[in-house]
Amino acid sequence: MRVIVLGADGYLGWPTAMHLSMKGHDVIAADSLIRRRWDVLCGTESLVRIAGMKRRVARWKAISGKQITWERLDLRSLPDTTALIAQYRPDVVIHFAEQRSAPYSMISGPHAVETQVNNVVGTLNLLFALRESAADCHLVKLGTMGEYGTPNIDIEEGFIEISHNGRKDRLPYPKQPGSFYHLSKVHDSHNIMFTCRAWGLRATDLNQGVVYGSGTPETDLDSDLRTRFDYDDIWGTVLNRFCAQAAVDYPLTVYGTGGQTRGFIDIRDTVRCVELAALNPPERGEYRVFNQFTEQFSVGELALRVQAARTAHGLETSIEHLPNPRTEMEAHYYNAKHQRLLDLGLQPHSLEDSLIDRVIGLVERHKKRIKPHLFAPRVDWRFGGRGDIKAPAASRRTVPTAPSISTRS
Amino acid sequence: MRVIVLGADGYLGWPTAMHLSMKGHDVIAADSLIRRRWDVLCGTESLVRIAGMKRRVARWKAISGKQITWERLDLRSLPDTTALIAQYRPDVVIHFAEQRSAPYSMISGPHAVETQVNNVVGTLNLLFALRESAADCHLVKLGTMGEYGTPNIDIEEGFIEISHNGRKDRLPYPKQPGSFYHLSKVHDSHNIMFTCRAWGLRATDLNQGVVYGSGTPETDLDSDLRTRFDYDDIWGTVLNRFCAQAAVDYPLTVYGTGGQTRGFIDIRDTVRCVELAALNPPERGEYRVFNQFTEQFSVGELALRVQAARTAHGLETSIEHLPNPRTEMEAHYYNAKHQRLLDLGLQPHSLEDSLIDRVIGLVERHKKRIKPHLFAPRVDWRFGGRGDIKAPAASRRTVPTAPSISTRS
Repeated sequence: MRVIVLGADGYLGWPTAMHLSMKGHDVIAADSLIRRRWDVLCGTESLVRIAGMKRRVARWKAISGKQITWERLDLRSLPDTTALIAQYRPDVVIHFAEQRSAPYSMISGPHAVETQVNNVVGTLNLLFALRESAADCHLVKLGTMGEYGTPNIDIEEGFIEISHNGRKDRLPYPKQPGSFYHLSKVHDSHNIMFTCRAWGLRATDLNQGVVYGSGTPETDLDSDLRTRFDYDDIWGTVLNRFCAQAAVDYPLTVYGTGGQTRGFIDIRDTVRCVELAALNPPERGEYRVFNQFTEQFSVGELALRVQAARTAHGLETSIEHLPNPRTEMEAHYYNAKHQRLLDLGLQPHSLEDSLIDRVIGLVERHKKRIKPHLFAPRVDWRFGGRGDIKAPAASRRTVPTAPSISTRS
Repeated sequence: MRVIVLGADGYLGWPTAMHLSMKGHDVIAADSLIRRRWDVLCGTESLVRIAGMKRRVARWKAISGKQITWERLDLRSLPDTTALIAQYRPDVVIHFAEQRSAPYSMISGPHAVETQVNNVVGTLNLLFALRESAADCHLVKLGTMGEYGTPNIDIEEGFIEISHNGRKDRLPYPKQPGSFYHLSKVHDSHNIMFTCRAWGLRATDLNQGVVYGSGTPETDLDSDLRTRFDYDDIWGTVLNRFCAQAAVDYPLTVYGTGGQTRGFIDIRDTVRCVELAALNPPERGEYRVFNQFTEQFSVGELALRVQAARTAHGLETSIEHLPNPRTEMEAHYYNAKHQRLLDLGLQPHSLEDSLIDRVIGLVERHKKRIKPHLFAPRVDWRFGGRGDIKAPAASRRTVPTAPSISTRS
């Protein structure tokens, strides 16, 4: 397959690009590199140093003998996006290229707007580019399990059969997202579903759980091939943050009671799930949803798992409950289906103490770069972000809202 | 009540502002006037000449003795929106200020982006401004029945009780919108619902049907108080377009078979529904949805109604079926609830031949201004718009995507 990976500079995008390249696919890696600028603005930084994209693809070539083509691209530009799709006419586009932090989206009005405009406009531009130049291409889009919220009924994969007043229909599963970021993914899902129906595009929406892990076999091949590891309040996912806290003998900080239950997935399974989706495309006109996680845990349980893994080595770890900065239920029913990727052959890694040890080991090797003040949440869902989170330079590109073309062929 | 009407220059906004002013409320009318610019770009024009906003409010004062305060405002500016809300601290904000044409949103990628950015960002900015300066204010937001699409089960008002695998929950009604415009309203609904939950705002989402009619008692008081009347392919709603076609002896153009069924409402009921919603606010933290229409018809039935009204005067009217430029079902189940506004006291105007006569009469008085080439659809849902729809000037304001503030108090 010829595959374009959008957002290839990210935590998951880069390992996905290498995984697909290793499997023999022709991979084009694209990114605007905005994630690195967001780090500067938030005072955050990947725990492990990451190489630039040019260096990464050169090292990948040297080590694997395989070519990944690097393209700098901002999806917010329709002409640039259209040009990329027209140039490569991919079989599959894998779309990770979104602002993916819930806390970031809750900092302020402008951050909420930036998140939704970046994500929604980027995806709209991609959909128009596909219609124009690659209508047969399979769009594999990263969504999130957070689109569903925490309903009091089982969560299905994207759609639900509803019986009502003696009639039936299969309808999109109701969405109750919990941040402006999660909302942006819901907006994307609706936009993509519509274009499958109206234009006959084909798409797989991967509603992914919370990802954990330090890397994949490919990222482990060389220090220049590593992917980022975030442990801070803005970008760090919860298990990675707990492991970072454990490594430097800080208490594990649980928000509220810790009864919040979510789906989780190992980063090694993420890259495999994306590949499985790509290898098994839907029909033209079909919009389908896979719930991409392998196990569900409460945040409190995760903290206990990390604590237990430390105890096994005779190390003590404390757990601290902070006032919950988010508005979310802390005790709720949660039972989410995740069958479709298993049906395609996914063999999941379950969360083992050895994985926790491995992540903690990684953090210990980079201990000096840990900034413990980044463990504490700086963004409150009700009031916004603390003042030490910087605003971007005024020189940032703005999105043109004015139509600049209006013709059809 | 002190009420801000956003989008007060529009077909519904201006009559609503006068209706509320007549009822003794303190009305601030705000608009960016972008709708008049969109007319220029699309080559469209209101059938009846409409006065500028300054002239309108002056004439309203002279005739009614009542003051409507006019403020020019672009909701895409967060500082301007925040300043307006802080200055007036309204009890109610009525939000009509969106790009509201489905065909416009389908012209091209940039038009789709403009529609979603304009609507979603405007609403987000308003939500942040309310949180900042008027958290107790009641937001009355205009949505659309088109958010629901045409499911094979009864359409409820915003939420549906779902029983699934032995458990139950009341969840947001699944959405299947049929254009980038309708999608933008779904995005808004999700964003507003979230802020009611997270910030304790209160909001009523009025999922309105297709509006028809030439005006209200207030717009009829003086030629300077008229509201716009659109009959063209981009902005004209279907019944108004049929009446315009009948008035100039053109065939009524039905898209496809005409089996598409929708909810409809008289403009005189729109202003009353908005008032009823405003007078009966929800609790803090509540997000509620009213389906705002009074009768449902298929497009084919409407054409027959117009034809019959003409026949009663001995006039012949033909009906022409055009290839449907939209992607929509032309034969489907449709049964949408609309009880909650009736419960609040709405006494609906049903569609009478006399109303049809009245609208046709209006068109006949302005016959010379009719441009029959604007009857034909220029926008196809699959391919986009024809080249004669102009792109806006490059001087148009763009939306800043870069956060310009980042502090919380």
